[in-house]
Amino acid sequence: MSLFTAADAPTFDDVLSAADRLDGLAVRTPLISSPTLDARIGAQVLLKAEPLQRTGSFKFRGAYNALSRLGDEARRRGVVAFSSGNHAQGVAEAAKLLDIPATIVMPSDAPEIKKAGVIARGAELKLYDRETESREALAWQLCEESGRTLIPSFDHPHIIAGQGTCGLEVFQELSGRGLKAGRLVCCVGGGGLIGGINLAAEALSPETETFGAEPEGFDDHARSLASGELETNERKGGSVCDALLSPAPGELTFAINKRRLSGVGVVSDDEAMDAVRFAFEHLKIVVEPGGAAALAAVLSGRVEPAASGVTVIVLTGGNVDPGVFARAIGA
Amino acid sequence: MSLFTAADAPTFDDVLSAADRLDGLAVRTPLISSPTLDARIGAQVLLKAEPLQRTGSFKFRGAYNALSRLGDEARRRGVVAFSSGNHAQGVAEAAKLLDIPATIVMPSDAPEIKKAGVIARGAELKLYDRETESREALAWQLCEESGRTLIPSFDHPHIIAGQGTCGLEVFQELSGRGLKAGRLVCCVGGGGLIGGINLAAEALSPETETFGAEPEGFDDHARSLASGELETNERKGGSVCDALLSPAPGELTFAINKRRLSGVGVVSDDEAMDAVRFAFEHLKIVVEPGGAAALAAVLSGRVEPAASGVTVIVLTGGNVDPGVFARAIGA
Repeated sequence: MSLFTAADAPTFDDVLSAADRLDGLAVRTPLISSPTLDARIGAQVLLKAEPLQRTGSFKFRGAYNALSRLGDEARRRGVVAFSSGNHAQGVAEAAKLLDIPATIVMPSDAPEIKKAGVIARGAELKLYDRETESREALAWQLCEESGRTLIPSFDHPHIIAGQGTCGLEVFQELSGRGLKAGRLVCCVGGGGLIGGINLAAEALSPETETFGAEPEGFDDHARSLASGELETNERKGGSVCDALLSPAPGELTFAINKRRLSGVGVVSDDEAMDAVRFAFEHLKIVVEPGGAAALAAVLSGRVEPAASGVTVIVLTGGNVDPGVFARAIGA
Repeated sequence: MSLFTAADAPTFDDVLSAADRLDGLAVRTPLISSPTLDARIGAQVLLKAEPLQRTGSFKFRGAYNALSRLGDEARRRGVVAFSSGNHAQGVAEAAKLLDIPATIVMPSDAPEIKKAGVIARGAELKLYDRETESREALAWQLCEESGRTLIPSFDHPHIIAGQGTCGLEVFQELSGRGLKAGRLVCCVGGGGLIGGINLAAEALSPETETFGAEPEGFDDHARSLASGELETNERKGGSVCDALLSPAPGELTFAINKRRLSGVGVVSDDEAMDAVRFAFEHLKIVVEPGGAAALAAVLSGRVEPAASGVTVIVLTGGNVDPGVFARAIGA
């Protein structure tokens, strides 16, 4: 189910326009180096630290870009979003900034820190059962009843363009330092972030190969790239990478990603948790398991570093419950 | 006990010289903004994130600067350092880079992550009992037996100048963004870091008021500022802020700090642990309790934010054992 077709896919100009909207509101997150990581990988690595983004993940970028483009009438009526938690917080934060009523549909097993983040921002929270209920149906029903606008978590031109500002910052910063990215590795749920990054890479750094990272059992992008068609996951939940459990690539996101994504590394839950621990011990950044999937893919050797130029790894979010984090770090 | 007198205190030129030595080796750590923190404090705050420094704390800066200035003969003989753990890792890392043998004297109750960091870098570790043994005596004995050079953790011109590069980066970055720091808050153990920062502030940002932060029971700088003399702590251990338990200000460091430090906020262990949790939940940075003392001082209201200009908070280190971190985040 998508609101759009591939013809509606955004362009690099849309990413630039999103960057204007986000200026002064989104955090320009740092691109971090770690001698320990470089030694471990045997290559020069730079980490784009999106856990340091407003709301603790990159999702604020797309959410604010989308909400800020709604007209007065749509703003008054409000928005609905369904999300495992990070898009939820991005939408809630953007809605708060723009004074738009927001209702968020989240799975009942979402991390508590993500539920609390939505409520703290003044949005209305509706929970559903991931195994038995359809969040799409629930969200559509809410929209039909109230005239609210649905804000999809990835398959929307404004969302993809907003996430693309993450890539824009990476390539601008590298250029300023006189560096080139041979490879960029980023986790993939619905493919919105890597889609936006791919738009920036096409325009600013065509030599950069982009790779995805997915959790085992949710390797829809890996299979879709192989078949050329949109492949769907059989499982609906059960991975510690709660942020990456989208059922299938988006129409729009896959239209972009299939022309540019060089491959996908599939990581186990244990590998994701090991990457969370590595980030705790050596990078000193709080990363949630899904947000550490790209780091896990490189640490586990499932994605090789660049043969020339730097390897950029995107850490995408850090909204993790204390209990899960304690387990990851062996406390 | 100091190897130096106040007349040996370094100058801003020494900080600039240290920056040259550290170029390409130390991480230029980011200055991070957090809309959540700004809202909580009611002021524009920027965080200098030294947990992201090589070895997980700012200590690499001074250690490398000092070791890189040793002559060939001294390098062959090696170095000795005593430290609660972060200076230990800084010296061990610098010694490894420069191929200098290093022996580190650490308290037996130091965090395991800090002991492991020393051993992983190939240095020799000697443990002592914080309550019954003198680390100074032990270190001197090692130096006399072996002809090795003692590298103090704070009261040394090259150490202070090296730590000052942290302040240099802060004021250069602010200047590049067209901002001025009204206040800068930084935790204080022996006063080496804030001493170096004060040298940078005098030269580049004289309008910036600097404040320290100390743990309860280890408020030697607060009392020394009040009396104008070097005051000593009665306690030797027992605070969760293991990085900040120096017995007294240094001769050199206090010579600088007494002319420039506007005040010191004294924080409880609970306030330090609350700041660790805040950094986990909202900043997504791993900070050790001592490294979070300045954040704790501002969050608790013990140090007010700047009335005009930005407030800079230095997060100094992130080497914390998983068990302590889990306790801080309520896992």
